[in-house]
Amino acid sequence: MAGYPQETFLNVKLAPDSFLEKKRRTASVASLKQQLGFMKSTGRYEAFKLKWLPVYDEPPAIWPIGSWLFWDSDIGKWLEGACYFLHTDYDAEIDAAVQELTDMLSNAQHDDGYLNLHYSIVEPTSNRFTNIRDFCELYNAGHLLEGALAHEHYYKNDKLLGPMIRYVDLIIKTFGPGEDQLHAYPGHPELEIALLRLHERTHDKRHFELAKYFITERGNPKGVDGRHYYDWEADKRGDDPNARPYFYPERTPSNWYYSASVPLVDMQTVEGHSVRPMYLLTAVADMVRIDKANTSDLRKAIVRLWEDMVSTKMYVTGGIGAMPQYEGFGIPYFLPQGTDEGGCYAETCAAIGIMMMVERVLQYDLDGSFTDILELAFYNAVLTASSTDGRKYTYVNQLASSDANPAERSEWFRCACCPPNILRTLAIIGGYLYSQPASTEVSAKHIAVHLYSSSTLDFTVSDHPSSLTQSTDWPWSGNVEFKLETSSKAVRISLRIPQWTSEWSIEPPPPYKEVTKGYITLPAEYLASNPNFTLKIKLETRILASHPFVNTDTIAVARGPIIYCVEDFDNPWVDDHFKSLQLDPDAVVTERAVKDPSTGEEYVALDVHRGASLLPIKSLKAAPSIPWKTLSKAAADAEVIELLHMVPYYFRSNRGGRGMARTGIRRWIR
Amino acid sequence: MAGYPQETFLNVKLAPDSFLEKKRRTASVASLKQQLGFMKSTGRYEAFKLKWLPVYDEPPAIWPIGSWLFWDSDIGKWLEGACYFLHTDYDAEIDAAVQELTDMLSNAQHDDGYLNLHYSIVEPTSNRFTNIRDFCELYNAGHLLEGALAHEHYYKNDKLLGPMIRYVDLIIKTFGPGEDQLHAYPGHPELEIALLRLHERTHDKRHFELAKYFITERGNPKGVDGRHYYDWEADKRGDDPNARPYFYPERTPSNWYYSASVPLVDMQTVEGHSVRPMYLLTAVADMVRIDKANTSDLRKAIVRLWEDMVSTKMYVTGGIGAMPQYEGFGIPYFLPQGTDEGGCYAETCAAIGIMMMVERVLQYDLDGSFTDILELAFYNAVLTASSTDGRKYTYVNQLASSDANPAERSEWFRCACCPPNILRTLAIIGGYLYSQPASTEVSAKHIAVHLYSSSTLDFTVSDHPSSLTQSTDWPWSGNVEFKLETSSKAVRISLRIPQWTSEWSIEPPPPYKEVTKGYITLPAEYLASNPNFTLKIKLETRILASHPFVNTDTIAVARGPIIYCVEDFDNPWVDDHFKSLQLDPDAVVTERAVKDPSTGEEYVALDVHRGASLLPIKSLKAAPSIPWKTLSKAAADAEVIELLHMVPYYFRSNRGGRGMARTGIRRWIR
Repeated sequence: MAGYPQETFLNVKLAPDSFLEKKRRTASVASLKQQLGFMKSTGRYEAFKLKWLPVYDEPPAIWPIGSWLFWDSDIGKWLEGACYFLHTDYDAEIDAAVQELTDMLSNAQHDDGYLNLHYSIVEPTSNRFTNIRDFCELYNAGHLLEGALAHEHYYKNDKLLGPMIRYVDLIIKTFGPGEDQLHAYPGHPELEIALLRLHERTHDKRHFELAKYFITERGNPKGVDGRHYYDWEADKRGDDPNARPYFYPERTPSNWYYSASVPLVDMQTVEGHSVRPMYLLTAVADMVRIDKANTSDLRKAIVRLWEDMVSTKMYVTGGIGAMPQYEGFGIPYFLPQGTDEGGCYAETCAAIGIMMMVERVLQYDLDGSFTDILELAFYNAVLTASSTDGRKYTYVNQLASSDANPAERSEWFRCACCPPNILRTLAIIGGYLYSQPASTEVSAKHIAVHLYSSSTLDFTVSDHPSSLTQSTDWPWSGNVEFKLETSSKAVRISLRIPQWTSEWSIEPPPPYKEVTKGYITLPAEYLASNPNFTLKIKLETRILASHPFVNTDTIAVARGPIIYCVEDFDNPWVDDHFKSLQLDPDAVVTERAVKDPSTGEEYVALDVHRGASLLPIKSLKAAPSIPWKTLSKAAADAEVIELLHMVPYYFRSNRGGRGMARTGIRRWIR
Repeated sequence: MAGYPQETFLNVKLAPDSFLEKKRRTASVASLKQQLGFMKSTGRYEAFKLKWLPVYDEPPAIWPIGSWLFWDSDIGKWLEGACYFLHTDYDAEIDAAVQELTDMLSNAQHDDGYLNLHYSIVEPTSNRFTNIRDFCELYNAGHLLEGALAHEHYYKNDKLLGPMIRYVDLIIKTFGPGEDQLHAYPGHPELEIALLRLHERTHDKRHFELAKYFITERGNPKGVDGRHYYDWEADKRGDDPNARPYFYPERTPSNWYYSASVPLVDMQTVEGHSVRPMYLLTAVADMVRIDKANTSDLRKAIVRLWEDMVSTKMYVTGGIGAMPQYEGFGIPYFLPQGTDEGGCYAETCAAIGIMMMVERVLQYDLDGSFTDILELAFYNAVLTASSTDGRKYTYVNQLASSDANPAERSEWFRCACCPPNILRTLAIIGGYLYSQPASTEVSAKHIAVHLYSSSTLDFTVSDHPSSLTQSTDWPWSGNVEFKLETSSKAVRISLRIPQWTSEWSIEPPPPYKEVTKGYITLPAEYLASNPNFTLKIKLETRILASHPFVNTDTIAVARGPIIYCVEDFDNPWVDDHFKSLQLDPDAVVTERAVKDPSTGEEYVALDVHRGASLLPIKSLKAAPSIPWKTLSKAAADAEVIELLHMVPYYFRSNRGGRGMARTGIRRWIR
């Protein structure tokens, strides 16, 4: 069983007062309709009526890619999220919109199954499938297909999935190793993910095979006529080799931007645009789960690229992508915090991609080092991307603001991939909490708890309804009370012990405390006699540094899975985005429970007492260097700040202020 | 009087055993012929016979710019340097080559005065002057004109200057504010410098006016038909707006790369390619000297851009240009040391541009803060670009090596701007030592000493031959003995007191020790009774830091004007380009006079005793952060290195080794 969170979330009831349910409810109550409003006002909603819209006459904002080229995917993601919410939070307006969109999409389908906005109205020629690299037809198809799967799951009809399967039939016919087929693969992976989910639904081997073809053919240096498909395709289009979109790296396309420079099994480092490899690896991990016997090279590639990414290209927030120029990965250890330090992108969708990928990996490899990053990315790099009221978003999640890029939110984006991605992720967040690794004994059950949140998981053992309930104030408290209700004596539970904690315990004590790959497994015997047990994970303020090769002299503050930042709202004296702020790693930091009056957000704030200061920057002029003695004396003598306030990074940009925020803070040399 | 070093160097006799004369002699004995050899073997020498060469058939290595587009300038610079050396180190082969080149250039001139390789043979159409921005006709003209001035100075004939003045006549006719003229200015400044020098020679007002037009028209947003000239020109050519050379910044040209985004008087920061603004400001400074009354805005621009550059965009070596992508300036305080830190270019020609610019500024503003940087750039960023044997060069001068870019030298470059630029600079280095600021009294003389080196300056006061002699082992010793020989009682001498010294004295003591803008002026009365005096500047090891906003945790080591580095030749245990090396800023550092057996180079080496260590990097895996306590403990506990050897940065890559070197070293937190 796949255990896709898109389905398992229905088995998990988040407690109404849990942190996660509050975030999910905000998305349901606010974001869903707010985004529908923007879908309508921007033309995305009506677009599939195939009427001409004024935007199609404008030159593409990012040549050659018109902004409407991704509209199919925006609709697909919103519709997907909407269908998830309809299960739990029925709303007639949303229901009607989903049904109208379904009709529009269905009516827009060509006789041969083709379904894509751009080549139906803007360029209704035979040019379809001539720019697989950039024009995102297959990416769009993937999101529409995921939407269709969610649609069928809720409506129990094939009004959307039927047409999408017909489209997939056309794609199967068009792409593949055959002589009359295109040896291509999506410029932006996503359809691979959707096809494997479709395969789980249809058990149609062709759906698996197409995903496999896309994954294994990708980056083939001799894909067609002895050349890389994308190069062959570009020449066939007659592209000027010196013309390229502004966001391409400095040299003409090397297919590196697309994570297609070489086949995945040969790829040594994550490369290019940061969302693409995350989506690709999500599909690859699912393929490994499905076809473990024939995918050992791919499985190794996942581990290799993951380790490269986590150790050398990930921010302390779990964000990825240092390079705004191409929304992608920089060189190893190049992790500037913001625009005036040389970069930082950390796109929301890339962090969501991390969650998706880890969730798939955990299905075949219960390894807490993956889960720790899933949790880090979720609570920081993903959650920060939606305002507490669910009506404003961030696309880029820098760790420090600057005059050029203050910390602020937008209601919408021309390229609007992130908002509906947050929506559909929060809709199924319950599905990320647990998984049920395959057990060798049919009548036994193994439940892995990945994330902590007050919730109840319903499951069955040998057809007996059972449940596991958590009660906790996570992420603010590390105490998690569990209640197992089952008539089975063959239930085992694995609990993740985060690598970052220095102290943890389980009450009553289990027979042994051995942690294997980040999880402790409570044996059936223990659980049979201790259905109620408590996990206590010590949450304390932690001071974090970057790898020395990052070559920065900053430290960051964390507590549990939450990364903290400073904001001008709490520290109104700041006037330089906290660039002069120095923080003593040995400072006294106290915790304080806060309920923010303007947003209602409840969180633990941190207060630094006489442990920070402001470096007198104006007295330090480099010409082009400063004597170390001058600098160190200025640093040591800097006037102490009585109280520095810190808030969770995800909470930034919610209360007004001047958009000044910083995560990694200069280390104070006292 | 201009006092161009291109002429005044003949009044300065460098002592044979002086550091500077040894470097100059190496250029004369080795580089001059070595470069002539490459001029010949690459086709540059014969090119002006206008025969077709195979390279013209190749696609441009850097589209759209064929590598031969700058050949005119290479010839111009080499010929210029050759003529300077002929004065002092006559060589028949060089003489013959210069004369043959002169004939070839003269024969290649078109009837209307036009003289440019590309549009004479490769594209012999009417396209001349249609890509002023990129195709470097005017840049080439500038270097040929500077060559012609040097030629006339040595040969006392107009065989080259005559044709060049005819070419200038054509340029004067073609460019200017008139309705039938092109409102353009050089894509790469240089001709402006040459025109002002020509004006000094001819006193032809038109030569000054053309330079002035180029300088003041530059960046005019409404230069032609209400548009920026370069944009207008690109459209006229029919350029695809999305096609651009790989080295352009990510967005389509904003004219920022050319230092032409706005007029200079409105420019707030140095921008784009790093050589261009240095050459531009050299000409601007000369224009300020010539026309002080009407150039106050330009003078302010020089100071504004200089301060911006020195405080925020200059490396500790005096190198400039963090961005290899476009050979240019990065954002403020973005100063990675090498490729694996995110950049570093520090092109040799840009550092030579600093020297040229400062030399011009000192003619009207005796300010040691400029001279300090001239000296820094010369002894480090410029000198490092030639091997000690004068046969190998560097174009890029990174502060740290990496696997991608080891510290190494080349005999030649496809784009060979740097080697002949070093040649012509060393040829006239004596001209940089002194200047003679205009005196209010006709019969009096004021001599400013900018750089220290054993040498004799010959000058006249009221037609009486006089001389000033320095004896010193600078840059290794700070003691400089002066001897003034003159019958005049009205000679004043200003000595530069480097800002970096903590202690200095003059013996016998002058009446007061007041330093004004970095210079102490010895009054005529003092000198009349003390023609022999000694300046003692304390040279000691200094530990330098970057501005805090550079956000790095490294320190560099200097002694006098010399910046030091570590090299694997002296520290063979290194295997990671010294990335793990930690240096204690309070370490005991001793000095040691060395005569290197393989190169004969004499220098002061530095030894760090038990003040460095190797961070155990392999034990520190970021995922994606490291607890500060773990990192700081690992740093503090690192095993001490008994002895770390440091050599002058300019001396790197001369003795073999594995190309590992580093300047700024991680600060050891003990």
